[in-house]
Amino acid sequence: VSFEVTILGSSSALPTSERFPTAHLLIVNERFFLIDCGEGTQIQLRRFRFNPARISHIFISHLHGDHVFGLFGLLSSLGLMGRQSEIHLYGPEGLQVLLQDHLKYFGPLPYEIIYHFPDDYGEFFYEDDHITVKAIPLAHRTTTYGFIFREKPRMLNIKKEKIGELGLGIADMVKIKRGEDFVLPDGKVVPNRAITLPPYHPRSYAYISDTRFAPSIVEDIKEVDLLFHEATFAEEDSRLAAGNWHSTARQAAEIASRANVRQLLIGHFSTRYKHVDMLLKEAVEVFPDTIAVKDGDRFSLPLEREEEEKV
Amino acid sequence: VSFEVTILGSSSALPTSERFPTAHLLIVNERFFLIDCGEGTQIQLRRFRFNPARISHIFISHLHGDHVFGLFGLLSSLGLMGRQSEIHLYGPEGLQVLLQDHLKYFGPLPYEIIYHFPDDYGEFFYEDDHITVKAIPLAHRTTTYGFIFREKPRMLNIKKEKIGELGLGIADMVKIKRGEDFVLPDGKVVPNRAITLPPYHPRSYAYISDTRFAPSIVEDIKEVDLLFHEATFAEEDSRLAAGNWHSTARQAAEIASRANVRQLLIGHFSTRYKHVDMLLKEAVEVFPDTIAVKDGDRFSLPLEREEEEKV
Repeated sequence: VSFEVTILGSSSALPTSERFPTAHLLIVNERFFLIDCGEGTQIQLRRFRFNPARISHIFISHLHGDHVFGLFGLLSSLGLMGRQSEIHLYGPEGLQVLLQDHLKYFGPLPYEIIYHFPDDYGEFFYEDDHITVKAIPLAHRTTTYGFIFREKPRMLNIKKEKIGELGLGIADMVKIKRGEDFVLPDGKVVPNRAITLPPYHPRSYAYISDTRFAPSIVEDIKEVDLLFHEATFAEEDSRLAAGNWHSTARQAAEIASRANVRQLLIGHFSTRYKHVDMLLKEAVEVFPDTIAVKDGDRFSLPLEREEEEKV
Repeated sequence: VSFEVTILGSSSALPTSERFPTAHLLIVNERFFLIDCGEGTQIQLRRFRFNPARISHIFISHLHGDHVFGLFGLLSSLGLMGRQSEIHLYGPEGLQVLLQDHLKYFGPLPYEIIYHFPDDYGEFFYEDDHITVKAIPLAHRTTTYGFIFREKPRMLNIKKEKIGELGLGIADMVKIKRGEDFVLPDGKVVPNRAITLPPYHPRSYAYISDTRFAPSIVEDIKEVDLLFHEATFAEEDSRLAAGNWHSTARQAAEIASRANVRQLLIGHFSTRYKHVDMLLKEAVEVFPDTIAVKDGDRFSLPLEREEEEKV
């Protein structure tokens, strides 16, 4: 079961010849989630061999051009490719008015767009059998959301050999998977831990872009496996960062450290820095497990069992 | 003095990993003319090392996404780069309403956009000291213009050694450059052809995209040095071409042949063809001097003297 993030664009407002504007593709269990859609996203999808037609869920963090200008071309191309099934768009409310205005000139599309706004939802902005997505407000110039994708906790796995050994029926197995002990006909109790393997660890990915340093998000992204946090500026430009509602690389690392995440990805680099080594260095000083992403990078989280509880 | 066309995007409606949507850059005498602006044009400009800030004149053939979706990002980036001087936009009238609607969400820009529509002009849609641009209607599903860029005819050049030899003054030289003979004090006539070199050939480029087979344009593009003509389809799909208001490669070549152009460039290829060799072959059968363009191709027209008239 896959859980993989691909960086489609890693620049900030201005693209370069090497870095497209922001877009990430998260694939969970073969389902495609596109997160932000800067100009050229459909081209990057093709370049990195992802079929755009497989996208049905698009999350937009905020309505700045470098996060959304690729949407027009992508939606149009999906129509030209003969799409009929719905596209679900998740993002700030303005998205609907904006797209409807746009489609007055370039539409209509041969499929329906279904809009979802965070305010219409309770705890989870999105939910299916495998994952939940939580939208959290960020601190940017315009209404902006971060998105936290978490796999649902899995049930315990019964050790295969125990099924025959103990003569387990379906009803027994459901109870055991939920954590109950098994009681033999003679009344003897077989403890759950003797029959089961710990479940697979629920993997998680948090996408935080764009935002000023915002410690308020730490609670929500606590212990995620993979945190992407924007790092537009270097520490020497921290005033510029604050003034433009962006973060420095060190601030991204500070958030990662406080949230005790497993790995930090930084991106959304300002074009003022020829090389991102300096930004990476500043982040690593605070949070060693940091990677400065580039277009085309893939981060695949393996399926791992939870460590057994210490008793 | 440069006269160079660079292909920034050579695909039709759907981009591929190799071909961006349509955009051409024409540079005449250091002045940049952007012709159409498909998604990713600003990225292609950077990739091929052109500074987007040098663009002040943008020609848009028609309002289909694959010719215009890059405009939003380009105009926005120019603003972020601190541009203050005007951008001149030449294209169908709808462009103004569309962009003004768009800028309600993503504007304002720190510079002015000046809109130019063909109907407001007489013979030439654009004119400066060096070139004229004529807009001609094409046969597409929506209002679409082809653009013909022609250098202005140059005056004759006086052979350097003749200036001292004959003791030419400025007034004499102006007359000679216009074609007059020179009369010596003793009344003897020195024929113009003996004192002058033929002028440089005025170079020309015609951009024809998108259109059905349209023989009506032949008169206007007569004898251009370089003709770009869309060639979306192969001959076996000629019905599809006509039904979708596009041309086949052979039809492009037929236009080039009737107009007696020097060289034909074909592009705007449908993604249905894995290789464009077949399209090229079909065109070459009708017009041998044909090139199937790809992104990044540059076509530089040298400065050449007109051939001397046969007397």
